[in-house]
Amino acid sequence: MEISVRAPLDMHLHLRDGEMLRLVAPMSAADFAGAVVMPNLVPPVASVEAMQEYRGRVLAAGKEPEFYALMTLFFREYTEEELLRAKETPGFFGIKLYPAGVTTNSEQGVGNMASAEPTLRLMEQLGIPLLVHGESHGFVLDREEEFLPVYRSLAAKFPRLRICMEHISTAAAVKLLDEYENLCATITLHHLLLTLDDVMGDKLRPHLFCKPIAKREADREALLTAALGGHTRVMFGSDSAPHPREAKECCGCAAGIFSAPVALPRLAQLFALHGAVDKLQGFVSDNARRIYGLHVPEKKVTLRDEPMQVPESYRGFGQKVVPLDAGEELGWRVVERI
Amino acid sequence: MEISVRAPLDMHLHLRDGEMLRLVAPMSAADFAGAVVMPNLVPPVASVEAMQEYRGRVLAAGKEPEFYALMTLFFREYTEEELLRAKETPGFFGIKLYPAGVTTNSEQGVGNMASAEPTLRLMEQLGIPLLVHGESHGFVLDREEEFLPVYRSLAAKFPRLRICMEHISTAAAVKLLDEYENLCATITLHHLLLTLDDVMGDKLRPHLFCKPIAKREADREALLTAALGGHTRVMFGSDSAPHPREAKECCGCAAGIFSAPVALPRLAQLFALHGAVDKLQGFVSDNARRIYGLHVPEKKVTLRDEPMQVPESYRGFGQKVVPLDAGEELGWRVVERI
Repeated sequence: MEISVRAPLDMHLHLRDGEMLRLVAPMSAADFAGAVVMPNLVPPVASVEAMQEYRGRVLAAGKEPEFYALMTLFFREYTEEELLRAKETPGFFGIKLYPAGVTTNSEQGVGNMASAEPTLRLMEQLGIPLLVHGESHGFVLDREEEFLPVYRSLAAKFPRLRICMEHISTAAAVKLLDEYENLCATITLHHLLLTLDDVMGDKLRPHLFCKPIAKREADREALLTAALGGHTRVMFGSDSAPHPREAKECCGCAAGIFSAPVALPRLAQLFALHGAVDKLQGFVSDNARRIYGLHVPEKKVTLRDEPMQVPESYRGFGQKVVPLDAGEELGWRVVERI
Repeated sequence: MEISVRAPLDMHLHLRDGEMLRLVAPMSAADFAGAVVMPNLVPPVASVEAMQEYRGRVLAAGKEPEFYALMTLFFREYTEEELLRAKETPGFFGIKLYPAGVTTNSEQGVGNMASAEPTLRLMEQLGIPLLVHGESHGFVLDREEEFLPVYRSLAAKFPRLRICMEHISTAAAVKLLDEYENLCATITLHHLLLTLDDVMGDKLRPHLFCKPIAKREADREALLTAALGGHTRVMFGSDSAPHPREAKECCGCAAGIFSAPVALPRLAQLFALHGAVDKLQGFVSDNARRIYGLHVPEKKVTLRDEPMQVPESYRGFGQKVVPLDAGEELGWRVVERI
């Protein structure tokens, strides 16, 4: 059996910088036509100049001239002039908002949503999408649900602002999509596969530790139903987040799952398992292109139900990173990229 | 300020075997008058002979002739003759029941509670306490609450059987104590200190990963209220569970917190902080002695509010184990043991 996807997009991707960027960027650039690249470097990508420079490094590292690197700015209070300049900058996609301190390198994030409103109003007027890491500072399993009132408030106050709830992990967030037309969401591969039991039900699995943390089976099922059922406002975003192996297996292990090199084969396997291969194209490309009006370079990636051996780790440039499904054999692999 | 505790008891302790036993047993034997030693070795301690031999190794390793090693048998279907022999064996304390596969080395545990009833009936008749690791196989955060109906059923069916809910971690379990006079419970140090946010709210902390997993703040508060408030049917049981460092910091990290060497100072600090030093004696000794009718050797341990530097790890006999509060400075230390 074969599945071909046209212009697959990863709508939420961490590529880091430096040597790690050089190791991981080619993997995403090989399998995907484009990706939305997150700005949470140290320091964050919070100016048009920094974004342009980072885009140059991303494209150079990806070694794929056609790769459509959709760049994001880290949310801060921006002036109209800055936003206008961003809009005119090739590859600019949107602005990513992190509540302060909720995930890796988000210490500079937003502490007070009220102070964000003038910038959000400008973004609405200029048609710049807002991407949000939607978690509160509450109990780890409640953080996404506790943040939903903020989404409601933003969606109601800025009805023409396109708001993407990034990497949703709960049934409640899926349900919220029904309330506001201007909300959309990305869903990761790992939130379609895992619950908290996989992370810590038996032994503790640091390589499955991510934020938002995987939740209950009912949450996973709601996410699966949205993705496999062809919900038109959910999009694939891997949230693939490489950390050096030593930052994952230590006394204080960083949050993030590196899924980029297995994402498309694993998604094909999942959609095939559930008899939903006809919904894969929408999930990994068409929904995003329609929602954001993206014109993505042509690229066709073909997958076949043949074994793919996932390595224990990917190494290069002095880096070593452990992928999702490390050491496992997947049932699907990429056979052609044109 | 000084606090003296008489005959402190650790009512739930893992000492392991071999080199690890030799490393950790002296720490418990130094600070405590006695301890209930868990039987989940590989293979489990499931015969009177194995128990006698293990007790000999525990006493030899502890290097404290007065240490009161209260030994447990791993639950299986025992005959009346076996139970009578156990009862006559010096140092025998009770039988520990693990539902199959719920924690470290519990693969041989009970799969079907109905098959356990004849043995439980005999234990009730002979006055042998039942100690239970009360977790279901459900979602990791629900496991203790899902097991409570089993406690209810056992407590009602065997009204004269002394049933100890080990290492309780939820407000619901504390509440269940009110329903049945024949239920009692042990509470660990770490469940008085931690919630799931400490384990995985920020970075992942493998050394704080244990079973049952630490729960919500409301659960921690209910446990604290029971311990600090002088609840007469809760007892200190550290559940101190040493794992070699490499088994805690790897791709699949074992559950268990090694708290034995810091347990008494940290408890003194906690009870002093909450103005409840008058309740410490009951929690760490008197409740257990009264509930089980124990005659414990005299031992007085005196603690003072002076700094104690906790090492990053304890090493010896080729073993290396990381304690709770590794590298931290505690506010209390043991100043005398007589």
